Amino acid sequence: MRRSTVRELLKVTRQPGMISFALGLPPAGLFPVAETRRAAQTVLEAGGGQALQYSETEGLPELRDWIAARYSNPGLKVTRANVLVTSGSQQALDLIGRVFLEEGDRVVVENPTYLALLGAWRPCGVKFLAAPCDNEGMRVSEVRPLLERRPKLLYTTPNFQNPQGTTLSRERREELVELMAQHDAGIVEDDPYGELRYEGETRPDLFALDAAAAGRSGRGMNVIRTGTFSKTLAPGLRVGWVIGPEEVVDKLVVAKQAADLHTGTFSQFLACELLRDRVLERQIPRLREVCRERRDAMWAALSRHFPGDARWTKPEGGMFLMVTLAEEVNTTILLPQALEQGVAYAPGADFHLDGRGGNTMRLNFSNCPPNQIEEGISRLGKLLKGRGLTGTGC
Amino acid sequence: MRRSTVRELLKVTRQPGMISFALGLPPAGLFPVAETRRAAQTVLEAGGGQALQYSETEGLPELRDWIAARYSNPGLKVTRANVLVTSGSQQALDLIGRVFLEEGDRVVVENPTYLALLGAWRPCGVKFLAAPCDNEGMRVSEVRPLLERRPKLLYTTPNFQNPQGTTLSRERREELVELMAQHDAGIVEDDPYGELRYEGETRPDLFALDAAAAGRSGRGMNVIRTGTFSKTLAPGLRVGWVIGPEEVVDKLVVAKQAADLHTGTFSQFLACELLRDRVLERQIPRLREVCRERRDAMWAALSRHFPGDARWTKPEGGMFLMVTLAEEVNTTILLPQALEQGVAYAPGADFHLDGRGGNTMRLNFSNCPPNQIEEGISRLGKLLKGRGLTGTGC
Repeated sequence: MRRSTVRELLKVTRQPGMISFALGLPPAGLFPVAETRRAAQTVLEAGGGQALQYSETEGLPELRDWIAARYSNPGLKVTRANVLVTSGSQQALDLIGRVFLEEGDRVVVENPTYLALLGAWRPCGVKFLAAPCDNEGMRVSEVRPLLERRPKLLYTTPNFQNPQGTTLSRERREELVELMAQHDAGIVEDDPYGELRYEGETRPDLFALDAAAAGRSGRGMNVIRTGTFSKTLAPGLRVGWVIGPEEVVDKLVVAKQAADLHTGTFSQFLACELLRDRVLERQIPRLREVCRERRDAMWAALSRHFPGDARWTKPEGGMFLMVTLAEEVNTTILLPQALEQGVAYAPGADFHLDGRGGNTMRLNFSNCPPNQIEEGISRLGKLLKGRGLTGTGC
Repeated sequence: MRRSTVRELLKVTRQPGMISFALGLPPAGLFPVAETRRAAQTVLEAGGGQALQYSETEGLPELRDWIAARYSNPGLKVTRANVLVTSGSQQALDLIGRVFLEEGDRVVVENPTYLALLGAWRPCGVKFLAAPCDNEGMRVSEVRPLLERRPKLLYTTPNFQNPQGTTLSRERREELVELMAQHDAGIVEDDPYGELRYEGETRPDLFALDAAAAGRSGRGMNVIRTGTFSKTLAPGLRVGWVIGPEEVVDKLVVAKQAADLHTGTFSQFLACELLRDRVLERQIPRLREVCRERRDAMWAALSRHFPGDARWTKPEGGMFLMVTLAEEVNTTILLPQALEQGVAYAPGADFHLDGRGGNTMRLNFSNCPPNQIEEGISRLGKLLKGRGLTGTGC
């Protein structure tokens, strides 16, 4: 086990004056602070001590019902029994690993992939199989040969992936769902960012596609879906969830009992009250507007300040983009100099499984206003150009 | 992995009219509801979005400082670096298992012991070694022969143990600390109930005894101590902690990053504000008074209503006592009949490692007012006597 560089950066980026593109922080200025104050009053007035008491491992029934309804559709009935509330979606991933993965199991992941997934599942002793990606996310055609190694699970963030910001196309989703079902390997669909779409068409969930295909053919469900309020309400509440077949949820409940008994009762009461107050309906459009503006500001700043041979992804939503620099740049080595200049990013190598990505960096665009984005990218650009670290010489 | 009977009972005991002695619920009527309302306002006014944002895995620095100061004494300097904030002390136990225990390791526990400890550590593939107990807790003399099997850890709840309510004597504490250090086996000292002492003299922590002994002899520290605000402020916040040598805490931090990134930021801000408001200083005396009264009510009701051959423990604090009934009584089989009579308890067999304890029950006395205790114990007494399940025949 090793510490996550990215999590460690949280401390550095608290320094005054630091412009941080390093972490996946939602814009704190947009958190529903007044609504949460009101919700705290309501909950403690109405619920009294019950909002501060122990509660069921599965989560508050009302919250599970809301989540179930949210992910149901005319062809797909999700019920309370399919939902476990978790302490952020990170815990959902951790529990899935603990319940379903054993020493020596193989797991397919996007390369690069979400760092804390590796942190959660590596201690299980699994072997990660790297699926190559392009601008439409995981290349499903290249997943086929990996299936010869009989992986137990495939993990994917199909919407606005962390770290790349890419989105899996509809065709690939359908292909992936069928392919994994044929090979009797499960899919973990992690969707923390799905609500934050700034343009383009929403793609169907793997979970919904799988349910439809399972219904047609009579086979069992094959996808577990994780989600969170961290990007839409507030991460500091630590309320996430996992949705899956009832027998899967049952096993995860047992593991959660051992892990932390249950997710914070007060946080869950607050989440329920915020939902009842229709805060999500107001937050999501605001978040979309603000984050789109910031993404655009980052694109513009990158075009203005970064070396001519730099390339970056074009996410339609989410919080991250990934920059690829000239081959000889090493963003891990460069980081301390960047921090000295008062700007932080996440080095790309950490997200890669195959030692590649040394010349990439993940940039978060959701946490800084446009003027800071301009300033931070300008500083990084000067560093990249001035130190002769790129081939452009400018 | 199997579901915990006790946790499952939480659902049953929510039924209207049910008198529950089954769970370790603090008295919800005493939770600092008004203070938490005020704290929520203060925190969201002063901290704004930061109280809802992601935060450091280690926990809020201010909270870690408070915990460190609380467990320091003139001869023992605990610092922030020795403290990790966890999602309840259950998570601390879980993380300790994940970091330090491997398949085949042996662990000494009191017999009977805390059920959710077994739930947390059993999946690590450990073998539990049962240390016999009496009215002064673990019989340390009987731990000696178990050490031949070279256990890696010993787990104990020295104060008002769950399920028995017993407290380890000072002499045994000193002996245990020395014994384990000699055998190079660690101690996990779980102390959720220590503040809830209703009479008698406070015994020194194993952690403090170990630090003193380590200081005298120059050896390293050997005790990890876990604690929680669940019994003193409110369990629904899910704020606990682990205190240990810095290198131990460092390892636990890595595991916690993978498990849930960090404990709820808002919960930690609330805990800090409640502490600043000196709520603990007001809560602890109130809790002591109320819980002592309830314990006394239960003792009186047991004497009045239970069969003459029933015996029970005499806890000086905490939330539980344990009743031993006539040999032929099986409290697991009896439970559905008790639930039918509108009263719930925790069958004792679940807490035992050796198949014994079938004729015991754990009774929680903190969650019901005295009149309900009288009524519930009366119903149980009738059931025990009326069904001819005891040898007394009355």
